[in-house]
Amino acid sequence: MKRIYEFRVEFFDVDSMSVMWHGNYVKYMESARCSLLNELGYNYLDMKNDGFVFPVVKMDIKFIAPLMFGEHFCVEIELVKNEGFLIFKYIFLKNDKKIARAATSQACVEIANHQTCFILPETLSQKIRSFR
Amino acid sequence: MKRIYEFRVEFFDVDSMSVMWHGNYVKYMESARCSLLNELGYNYLDMKNDGFVFPVVKMDIKFIAPLMFGEHFCVEIELVKNEGFLIFKYIFLKNDKKIARAATSQACVEIANHQTCFILPETLSQKIRSFR
Amino acid sequence: MKRIYEFRVEFFDVDSMSVMWHGNYVKYMESARCSLLNELGYNYLDMKNDGFVFPVVKMDIKFIAPLMFGEHFCVEIELVKNEGFLIFKYIFLKNDKKIARAATSQACVEIANHQTCFILPETLSQKIRSFR
Amino acid sequence: MKRIYEFRVEFFDVDSMSVMWHGNYVKYMESARCSLLNELGYNYLDMKNDGFVFPVVKMDIKFIAPLMFGEHFCVEIELVKNEGFLIFKYIFLKNDKKIARAATSQACVEIANHQTCFILPETLSQKIRSFR
Repeated sequence: MKRIYEFRVEFFDVDSMSVMWHGNYVKYMESARCSLLNELGYNYLDMKNDGFVFPVVKMDIKFIAPLMFGEHFCVEIELVKNEGFLIFKYIFLKNDKKIARAATSQACVEIANHQTCFILPETLSQKIRSFR
Repeated sequence: MKRIYEFRVEFFDVDSMSVMWHGNYVKYMESARCSLLNELGYNYLDMKNDGFVFPVVKMDIKFIAPLMFGEHFCVEIELVKNEGFLIFKYIFLKNDKKIARAATSQACVEIANHQTCFILPETLSQKIRSFR
Repeated sequence: MKRIYEFRVEFFDVDSMSVMWHGNYVKYMESARCSLLNELGYNYLDMKNDGFVFPVVKMDIKFIAPLMFGEHFCVEIELVKNEGFLIFKYIFLKNDKKIARAATSQACVEIANHQTCFILPETLSQKIRSFR
Repeated sequence: MKRIYEFRVEFFDVDSMSVMWHGNYVKYMESARCSLLNELGYNYLDMKNDGFVFPVVKMDIKFIAPLMFGEHFCVEIELVKNEGFLIFKYIFLKNDKKIARAATSQACVEIANHQTCFILPETLSQKIRSFR
């Protein structure tokens, strides 16, 4: 499943070169991820209610071109694999120009015993299967 | 009780004019507050263990002069009043130059019933009385 | 002139109590301010092109009720006075409940000589007069 | 060259699980990097004065164990390679426990013509050779 969300580079996002500070891309990746999970019908709150958290265990980003203050951009996000991990891929786009590529992996941890689960909770797997 | 803590303006703190973004002063106020509470022997974790949280209910800041990337500055913090509220006053200093003045008020809320307390927990009041 | 903009509380906005960290309100105030200035037709980039910057010199916020992760909220922003200063007032609303009130003052500084101007640039004043 | 710097997890760093939000690791990586460059005698301001900027073009982080509010941690940082790129490796440590591993690559861009340089500026290369 793939979705695309639009954002604007805020003044507090940019560094002294007037471009989005590289660390701030992480915020928009998370915002896109939360929006997609809302659409999937299984967000962080649902996870918590079911007794799970999904900490990010791996993240990588390639920065290809800068984003300037005030510019609009999109994050195209895809849920690509899910055997025990929630893996998302991201493409940052300005108009049709590629700005950045990124990926995150989230492990599934049971809150009660702090154990990592090696398969995703069934409720989540079902949601993923039925949602396109 | 008054304390002074030193910080450095980080690259991610500055805006496109190379000066610390005004919203980032709030972080250093909180860092100074947490350091002072550690010295007092009653920090956020102690509060929580005793069943209280202290949300900030009021904050004001006057920005007098800018802070540039890489500069060192101090936050002089004072716990000034405490009838039901934790009130802190802050002076930002660069060398001896005043950079900003600020104040925060924190209410004391009992976690169990979400009620605001009109006197501070006795443990905290004692700590404040005995600490100078 | 008054405008209202909608936002969502992001995961990275909340603190360990799952409520928006008080320092993060400043970001949404700035985002609303930039949106209003865009509508006015005189944003930070226009100011800079005309040789001016508008540093925030004063900010105060009253926090009335919390905002939780995932909640939607609005910032109602008003440009209220302008003799040399750009003054904005903000009301944070969740449905129709008041969440916070705030105000900021921005001085007008000429980039070339670092001098504070005591009247706003004529282009900006005109825009303010003609815009409702 | 390798250096180690100490930090504390601030209240505004943690998420609703009371652990440092994964995006905030990027800040401490940058803070460590700037400290090392200060020791090297060639920081961002020196780079800019010489007409260069070093945007981060690649970043990856592995998160191994969480950091809780108030905990102290270290970032061990190493400048590992430098043919045209500034590459840093980072290990986050709490006591002697590995918390995270990360790496960043920064390209060297000439400000005047926005061109990427394929060798580092000679001043910087000399500093790196002579510094241990």
